[in-house]
Amino acid sequence: MPKRPHRPLPLGTPAGVEVLTKILTQGPIPRVQIARRTGLSQAAVTKAVAPLVEAGFVTDHPAETEDGTEVRAELGIGRPVSPLTVVPDSISVIGLKVTPTDLIGVTTDFKAGIRAVRHQQLADKSPDSVLERLAELATELMATLHDKTDPAGPLIGVGVAVSGDVDAVHGVVRDSPFMGWRDVPVAALLGEKLKVPVIVSNDVRALTVAEHWFGVGVDADSFAVVTIGSGVGCGLYINGEVVSGAHGVSGELGHLPLAPGDLVCTCGRRGCVETVASSDAILARIRETTGRPELDLAGAIELAHEGDAHAREAFDRAGEVIGSALAAMVNLVGPQLVVIAGEGVADYDLYDQRMRQAFAEHAFGAAGDCTLMLRSHTFDDWARGAAATVIRSYVRGEPPLHR
Amino acid sequence: MPKRPHRPLPLGTPAGVEVLTKILTQGPIPRVQIARRTGLSQAAVTKAVAPLVEAGFVTDHPAETEDGTEVRAELGIGRPVSPLTVVPDSISVIGLKVTPTDLIGVTTDFKAGIRAVRHQQLADKSPDSVLERLAELATELMATLHDKTDPAGPLIGVGVAVSGDVDAVHGVVRDSPFMGWRDVPVAALLGEKLKVPVIVSNDVRALTVAEHWFGVGVDADSFAVVTIGSGVGCGLYINGEVVSGAHGVSGELGHLPLAPGDLVCTCGRRGCVETVASSDAILARIRETTGRPELDLAGAIELAHEGDAHAREAFDRAGEVIGSALAAMVNLVGPQLVVIAGEGVADYDLYDQRMRQAFAEHAFGAAGDCTLMLRSHTFDDWARGAAATVIRSYVRGEPPLHR
Ligand SMILES: [Zn+2]
Ligand SMILES: [Zn+2]
Repeated sequence: MPKRPHRPLPLGTPAGVEVLTKILTQGPIPRVQIARRTGLSQAAVTKAVAPLVEAGFVTDHPAETEDGTEVRAELGIGRPVSPLTVVPDSISVIGLKVTPTDLIGVTTDFKAGIRAVRHQQLADKSPDSVLERLAELATELMATLHDKTDPAGPLIGVGVAVSGDVDAVHGVVRDSPFMGWRDVPVAALLGEKLKVPVIVSNDVRALTVAEHWFGVGVDADSFAVVTIGSGVGCGLYINGEVVSGAHGVSGELGHLPLAPGDLVCTCGRRGCVETVASSDAILARIRETTGRPELDLAGAIELAHEGDAHAREAFDRAGEVIGSALAAMVNLVGPQLVVIAGEGVADYDLYDQRMRQAFAEHAFGAAGDCTLMLRSHTFDDWARGAAATVIRSYVRGEPPLHR
Repeated sequence: MPKRPHRPLPLGTPAGVEVLTKILTQGPIPRVQIARRTGLSQAAVTKAVAPLVEAGFVTDHPAETEDGTEVRAELGIGRPVSPLTVVPDSISVIGLKVTPTDLIGVTTDFKAGIRAVRHQQLADKSPDSVLERLAELATELMATLHDKTDPAGPLIGVGVAVSGDVDAVHGVVRDSPFMGWRDVPVAALLGEKLKVPVIVSNDVRALTVAEHWFGVGVDADSFAVVTIGSGVGCGLYINGEVVSGAHGVSGELGHLPLAPGDLVCTCGRRGCVETVASSDAILARIRETTGRPELDLAGAIELAHEGDAHAREAFDRAGEVIGSALAAMVNLVGPQLVVIAGEGVADYDLYDQRMRQAFAEHAFGAAGDCTLMLRSHTFDDWARGAAATVIRSYVRGEPPLHR
């Protein structure tokens, strides 16, 4: 398995990493702005930028707008300067999201812009079978990179996002209840098949990395990404970095003990948020209270939209617990912004009011002043998050991309 | 009011701040180690250290142990080097802790070592009266600095720690339910009286700053300080910095909605941890269940130690909710270490078992692998925390010490 990317970045120093990060996440950006925001001298910025331009990763050629006019920034003195941007197609990345029923894959450019998307159904969620399908999906995506009319940059690595407890450093899925996996060395196994460096991450963590570098994190000093759907997850960005947890676990909003203690969670614990708020829990509750065991989630949602009292109650209950969980989280870490995303967002109207009410009741003082932002969200975004983890490791010179 | 400390630090650059921070928190430390840990060149370290030594803040003279022998570090090659330390008595700081019944004050040296302690009872907790008493206490402490047989360094500022929502940037106690204060500009009012810069902080935050720079934080990558007593608080240190909250609120462990919803908290919300776990809540419960309204806290604790079932139940209930709250916190932020401190620690044996049990039941996966450390703790430590906030601001060149 190749341990080095095809295109090593010419970054000798921590200053180089800082400069490229600014260009990538805040570009187009003039050199003088980079100096101001990093505290580096302009000479140091120029020195770091030169080899990146030389190697084709960064450019100061003015971008063209859709109508063909040049985009230029103006400094105070009115002299036009050419701000720096990364060259999107200087590299390519593949991001893969694993769910119990489907695999979702994307290729992205350097700026995490999605170029191609492929989905694949899973018949069997055993590690062997899933890894086989993942390799096929990645190979299919690799083929799209060689389109002669629209060639992409060389592939630097593959990111895989899986729910659960993932040891990103060693590339091992330690415990994924949804997949039924324990201690699966995904990075090594998939890397062996593909002959490309592979990075494995917790899926919500990956989404948070994407928001940090290419989303709300560019403007927010701190934020939380909360995902609601078959599970309830949370990624945190505090003090300049995504929170990873000393033992690899953090953001387990779905397993805060805020629900009634007689309910047992898929994780085996009692009273977890997910026992009431996961889509499975909502469906189970509606099947039980309506006496209709044949209902599926779509049917249950329809019933709630029609105003069925039993169906509404299950969503209300979910909204109440999610609102309490959001309040608990902001009371502890006080983020500036909370982005609510996930498969459940499509049915957000069913628990929105109750959720906001419970949040307002339990948020402590100014912690409740954070912005709650709803973000529509698809499975492709999860796969893009996996790609973002690869881009971040590449820029930072972290293994396995630079081993 | 003087806006500048008597002894400005000769720190021209961010590198200088970084170097002094390393010496202060990790000294005695050789120059080569500082270079290694900061990523600075040895030349840059030497350049930053020189003016600090010159001005008497830092020394490389070997410290003497109690038996008079010199402490020297050895490098790999066996050549003894003189590691750098700060000169403790190059500055003095005063730290004050405000409680509804008492004021506690300390003077410390540069390393937050306590030199003198003074306590004062409060008859009246109105802001005017408390500020008057605080000024008296600080003046009394200032007098101790001029002891001719043991002279202290010049005073650089006064720190004040108050529970509740404190806007440290503007020096205003926004909302302190225990004190019954709202929007009290403590820094301005006390600074006017004392003619010395004043920094006001949330008390748990101040304690966390002391742990970060002079306690467990020197070795831990992330930690939480949990205080249990008349309130339940939490300070968090994550990603290299104490978590302050985008709107100034964080670590409100006492107001997570984990208790029964019919209980109303002193903050006005329902189901907060403190409705069951504060010492007042425990006492109220025992008075009610034993039918002995005359009991005080000491009496209630005695009763529980004697094995009274009602008294034990109240402590069990508190332990259960505290354990759940600790689990919620580690599930979200995953700290390496949790330090449990506070007035309640003296009676820790009464809820320890139930607390650990609830924690183990609800901690998610590897998040539960964090160390729970019990730290005995006095009111003097709170005051020392207030002093630590002053030392930190001084080293970092933050206002009001450098305005
Ligand atoms: Zn659970
Ligand atoms: Zn409360």
